[in-house]
Amino acid sequence: MDEFELIRQYFSDLGQDSSGCVELGVGDDCAIVSPPAGQQLVFSIDTLVEGTHFLPGTPPQQIATRLLGATLSDLAAMGARPGFFTLALTLPESDPEWLAEFARPLAQMAERHGVRLVGGDTTKGPLTLTVQVHGWVDRGCALRRDGARPGDAIYVTGTLGDSRAGLESLLRNLPHDDDIAYLQRRFYAPEPRLATAQLLTGQASAAIDVSDGLLADLQHILTASHVGACIELDELPLSPALRRFAGEQKAIEWACSGGEDFEICFTLPPGHEEAVLDSLVHHEVPVWKVGEIRASSGLVVRNSAGEQAVSARGFNHFSEQTES
Amino acid sequence: MDEFELIRQYFSDLGQDSSGCVELGVGDDCAIVSPPAGQQLVFSIDTLVEGTHFLPGTPPQQIATRLLGATLSDLAAMGARPGFFTLALTLPESDPEWLAEFARPLAQMAERHGVRLVGGDTTKGPLTLTVQVHGWVDRGCALRRDGARPGDAIYVTGTLGDSRAGLESLLRNLPHDDDIAYLQRRFYAPEPRLATAQLLTGQASAAIDVSDGLLADLQHILTASHVGACIELDELPLSPALRRFAGEQKAIEWACSGGEDFEICFTLPPGHEEAVLDSLVHHEVPVWKVGEIRASSGLVVRNSAGEQAVSARGFNHFSEQTES
Repeated sequence: MDEFELIRQYFSDLGQDSSGCVELGVGDDCAIVSPPAGQQLVFSIDTLVEGTHFLPGTPPQQIATRLLGATLSDLAAMGARPGFFTLALTLPESDPEWLAEFARPLAQMAERHGVRLVGGDTTKGPLTLTVQVHGWVDRGCALRRDGARPGDAIYVTGTLGDSRAGLESLLRNLPHDDDIAYLQRRFYAPEPRLATAQLLTGQASAAIDVSDGLLADLQHILTASHVGACIELDELPLSPALRRFAGEQKAIEWACSGGEDFEICFTLPPGHEEAVLDSLVHHEVPVWKVGEIRASSGLVVRNSAGEQAVSARGFNHFSEQTES
Repeated sequence: MDEFELIRQYFSDLGQDSSGCVELGVGDDCAIVSPPAGQQLVFSIDTLVEGTHFLPGTPPQQIATRLLGATLSDLAAMGARPGFFTLALTLPESDPEWLAEFARPLAQMAERHGVRLVGGDTTKGPLTLTVQVHGWVDRGCALRRDGARPGDAIYVTGTLGDSRAGLESLLRNLPHDDDIAYLQRRFYAPEPRLATAQLLTGQASAAIDVSDGLLADLQHILTASHVGACIELDELPLSPALRRFAGEQKAIEWACSGGEDFEICFTLPPGHEEAVLDSLVHHEVPVWKVGEIRASSGLVVRNSAGEQAVSARGFNHFSEQTES
């Protein structure tokens, strides 16, 4: 089967064009999109490399959900509605079975979140996957990193640290039980917090998705907003599975700097907390207050033992680093 | 140096936002773009892999111009004006010297063509580079593949086959002379025919860029338009350097199926030929009539010896193929 047939067979008309903006998808030199009136385009590009981001031999289903989930999470961090995406796929060989197993969950996820695959490139080489997702926000309403102010409360969605525990269980090749199945699902199939984050537009002063670890990602907000912060370690949302798997101490450590949780960390000005919490009462994803923005620069963590300055070390592909 | 600093140092504010649409570039979860009124967004994603698309040890300067040139050529094929681009860079190691040498010509080319780098991802792994370029077309005015009609003339820009000869000289490690320097430049630094193609909007019935070889790419037009074509072999534009390097016979073969020329192949309805040729009189890039669209399906080539049906074999990453 040649390249063109491969692409046609598995990647034509995949997903759903929920914003109704796609004029021309796969099959010409470029895709064509008509921007909805009054909207801004937001987009993010992400790459996964075998051996760097996932273990060799990882099932294609899990690569697909990890890839699209993580990239959609960047849209969520802007408070955007999903639109469409492209996929650049580098494969060691033409393997129809692999492609079919990769395309199926990708299509399901794209359908569920309302994004359509509109273009791509398929090349030969070491397994590497790049996705660019695009979404829409009302003009001027994107959630950014640079709006946090002293006194704003710091919130996170869902639970933190699970993904790091899932990875650990994979590296240690641990036998499956319910906890490990849950933790690995959190690693492989991150759920982008799109609906939750859309409720935050016009309310939150800053937002970011937790990809490098809470402290590292919060630090990006602090740097962009020229502020500091204090995180309450005892308020971090930890899943029961993580507590059982890792113990309290390790769970908190992973919640701070484990990375790849793909939850949203956001800041709320005092006057907006009540409105947001009210709008989230019947929402399926819980949010938790975990700290406060301060005027002084720097990041501190606090628990019953006191307060301590920390460095914002997250997962970082190019740095030699030791766990702090 | 860590990943974030690398990105900041070399890839912030690279290039030029000629369409004035970029609201937020590198540095948040997503970039933000405000679509110009009445415009459609067009975009294409392309990947280059070391060992597949370029030889190991290729200087980063040449990878940069090849990568951006080839991808901008997809915009040209739609008749689009350049807007902005993203870059996903997978590197075996953090090498500031390599990055500096890669970023410099990328910036120059992006500046010259009026595209700004607005987002990216830097990861560790085998050298792989993915670029997505975005441009704008007036609503409904994009050049597509599906509009060719029987009787339309087939044109190409520039000259064909040079790039394949440049590759050949690299593979054979031939000593440099003026011809080889020219041919290798054609391979490494393709010049996207953006200005030329913009003059074709509203005139050409179909267009594509020549990346897989004239016959293979023309076949995409034929398939999309449900027509056939005849190519006049003696009318193919061949550079003097190619003729000297390859001889007449090989030059024609490479012009037909060498690939990676990144010229534009387009079709003109009879009533539009004169207007287009007039508008191109003072244009720096020549265009050449090389054949005609026919009602019967299939692709034939013709010269003084007669007419012959051909298959449209171009460069194809996954097919075992012999040169026809």
